Amino acid sequence: MQGPTKDVPAGVAQGDLQDQKIAGYQSPLGVTATQSLALRGVRLQSGFNFDQVQVCYQTLGKLSAHRDNAILVCHALSGTAHVAGLHPQTGRPGWWDYHVGPGKAIDTDKYFVICSNVLGGCDGTTGPLSTNPKTGKPYGMDFPPVTVRDMVAVQAKLVEHLGIARLFAVTGGSMGGMQALAWAVDHPDRVRVCVPIATCVSHSAMQIAFNEIGRRAITTDPNWNEGNYTAARRPRHGLAVARMVGHVTYLSEYSMTRKFGRALQPRANPAGDDEDLFTVESYLHHQGDSFVSRFDPNSYLYLTKALDLFDLCDGKPPEEVLRRVKAHFLVISFASDWLYPPPQSRELVRLLKRSRVAATYINLESLYGHDSFLIENREFAGVLRDYLDNEYRNGRTHQAAATA
Amino acid sequence: MQGPTKDVPAGVAQGDLQDQKIAGYQSPLGVTATQSLALRGVRLQSGFNFDQVQVCYQTLGKLSAHRDNAILVCHALSGTAHVAGLHPQTGRPGWWDYHVGPGKAIDTDKYFVICSNVLGGCDGTTGPLSTNPKTGKPYGMDFPPVTVRDMVAVQAKLVEHLGIARLFAVTGGSMGGMQALAWAVDHPDRVRVCVPIATCVSHSAMQIAFNEIGRRAITTDPNWNEGNYTAARRPRHGLAVARMVGHVTYLSEYSMTRKFGRALQPRANPAGDDEDLFTVESYLHHQGDSFVSRFDPNSYLYLTKALDLFDLCDGKPPEEVLRRVKAHFLVISFASDWLYPPPQSRELVRLLKRSRVAATYINLESLYGHDSFLIENREFAGVLRDYLDNEYRNGRTHQAAATA
Repeated sequence: MQGPTKDVPAGVAQGDLQDQKIAGYQSPLGVTATQSLALRGVRLQSGFNFDQVQVCYQTLGKLSAHRDNAILVCHALSGTAHVAGLHPQTGRPGWWDYHVGPGKAIDTDKYFVICSNVLGGCDGTTGPLSTNPKTGKPYGMDFPPVTVRDMVAVQAKLVEHLGIARLFAVTGGSMGGMQALAWAVDHPDRVRVCVPIATCVSHSAMQIAFNEIGRRAITTDPNWNEGNYTAARRPRHGLAVARMVGHVTYLSEYSMTRKFGRALQPRANPAGDDEDLFTVESYLHHQGDSFVSRFDPNSYLYLTKALDLFDLCDGKPPEEVLRRVKAHFLVISFASDWLYPPPQSRELVRLLKRSRVAATYINLESLYGHDSFLIENREFAGVLRDYLDNEYRNGRTHQAAATA
Repeated sequence: MQGPTKDVPAGVAQGDLQDQKIAGYQSPLGVTATQSLALRGVRLQSGFNFDQVQVCYQTLGKLSAHRDNAILVCHALSGTAHVAGLHPQTGRPGWWDYHVGPGKAIDTDKYFVICSNVLGGCDGTTGPLSTNPKTGKPYGMDFPPVTVRDMVAVQAKLVEHLGIARLFAVTGGSMGGMQALAWAVDHPDRVRVCVPIATCVSHSAMQIAFNEIGRRAITTDPNWNEGNYTAARRPRHGLAVARMVGHVTYLSEYSMTRKFGRALQPRANPAGDDEDLFTVESYLHHQGDSFVSRFDPNSYLYLTKALDLFDLCDGKPPEEVLRRVKAHFLVISFASDWLYPPPQSRELVRLLKRSRVAATYINLESLYGHDSFLIENREFAGVLRDYLDNEYRNGRTHQAAATA
């Protein structure tokens, strides 16, 4: 069942394309830009009211005359609005360039794709780095707590602004999958198809534990300073360690063995007595350091907390919550994903089926751990494409029948 | 196959007994002490020569008249010489009190048990915290690199000092298992039985990665100061994060869900707006903080590096290395151990069998992850006891036959 995987040099991340410029990588979309929009009056679950929320987003493809072909793609923890195409400044491909573009699984010749940076993020949407209008300084830890549902509420306003009454589909992996789930529950009349990937209805103790290690690394870095750090003195070491922890949990035993094994890094000074360094160690250092240059430590705290606190049914009986869902579901997990293991997706499917929600489930045999959802994988792409195209065709047929 | 497990309150570590005083826990050995010995002239693999190495060790039970009943128990990364009985100062039970004592799997009524703190450790044996005779200050990072084989070389001198020409058995879990393996290879005539538990012939990229995260947390803590910290300004935050990472890798999804799930910690101030904290988070904070009080950060760097660099065959053909082994082997792994997963033990068994070494293998169904080797488990104890007792009886019969 294993789909082919693009071979990238060892030492280069196989997953998140956004983390590096891969030599010779071409995006069929070319350079793509993001836009920014100010939304007025956003109220959070906590009761906090924003007078204004800035949203950074990208759209690809064209909205159909019926406005029925919009797919909202939700990004994961370290993602951005830049879902596909090459970034105008960095030249790096978007994080899902493998799967979004002309002729790809999420075909921009057919669908209108929207991706926005989440509330609480650090890529143009209002977050802890944004200026607090009350103080004129960055919010820092005065930023209100953000939930996955709050992220979705902001996206719902954006979608409304774009003139779309009902999304054809909402999808995403990991934290993006949680947003897709929250969409289907919170806006049942505004989503036709929901494709949560490598995600869960709520975090397990182990998922919380790994996130808390990252948070602890950040908050015990003396530069964190209760969140009031300056650009010159950021808790970069803490954030780098957090990213290293995250990164290892995204990979699989297989992918690490295949990419690094016990290979040693060439010594800087072959004659010197510098310590032997395994390639995997220098790779993790690089991952940690490069993340620091593009991510805000406070944002990391807020977003991981939102992940840990997410509970699709918020403690209510699942059947009561899920019976209002109208979307059709395709639930995807990856056999080697030990961070969001397949039993969590099976649990989601069980809950959906019990509530008589139409749900298809596939556990793909990819060997690359949680990162599988970010990697080129023909089988994954085929499953995604076929499901979306079938649902889209069926919907159009029904619509034609209804208006006939 | 699952053996019963002692129920301890949630929030109390189930594994390493040494980490806490468990209310009402009784050791049949009562209070037990350690001893100290100065060994002269210890040469390391690196070529470094110690004029003197101090070794802290514990012995339990009595050496037989034939001096044929000695079992060397080797401790894991965070262990000490205090293997069983209650510590005279802290009152805490030794780390393997579940399995070492009168009537236990390693029966001190029958065997003479030796356990010594490893070279490079921080519980009485010479390590980075010891005074460097050249400077009068702690070695810190001037301590020479230590390998698992160096630890074994020091143990071999200790065993010789105790008047034991040949150990009946050598055993240990995790890093302790690596030492047991190195004993069988480096001292083939001095070990009759080898019982490596939850261990491997060399670390995988993932095992190295988790260790490197811990090391990075320590060395990027500003208090680390290139290893020259003072008692008042130790890199305690870095070490605590390192321990949190380690701790999570020692547990299983099952044990974390069973112990913590998504339970929330009662708020310090119920009326206040302090953040919701999951029980698993406060448990990890506690684990990190309590470890800091009993472990030296530099020692953590040295010992984890020794683990990562360990390679039983040191790059030579396994058959060439293992054909000199004379010990009989019992190899034990635990099905839920994802840090030292069963395939690594199977690989060891395969190599032993290929070299015609007598090896028995059992993969126990314990649900508690890598920590399984530290936990009360009737099946594990039974397997260990039966194997040791059979081998001991057979050895005595052979000896009697040989001298008859």
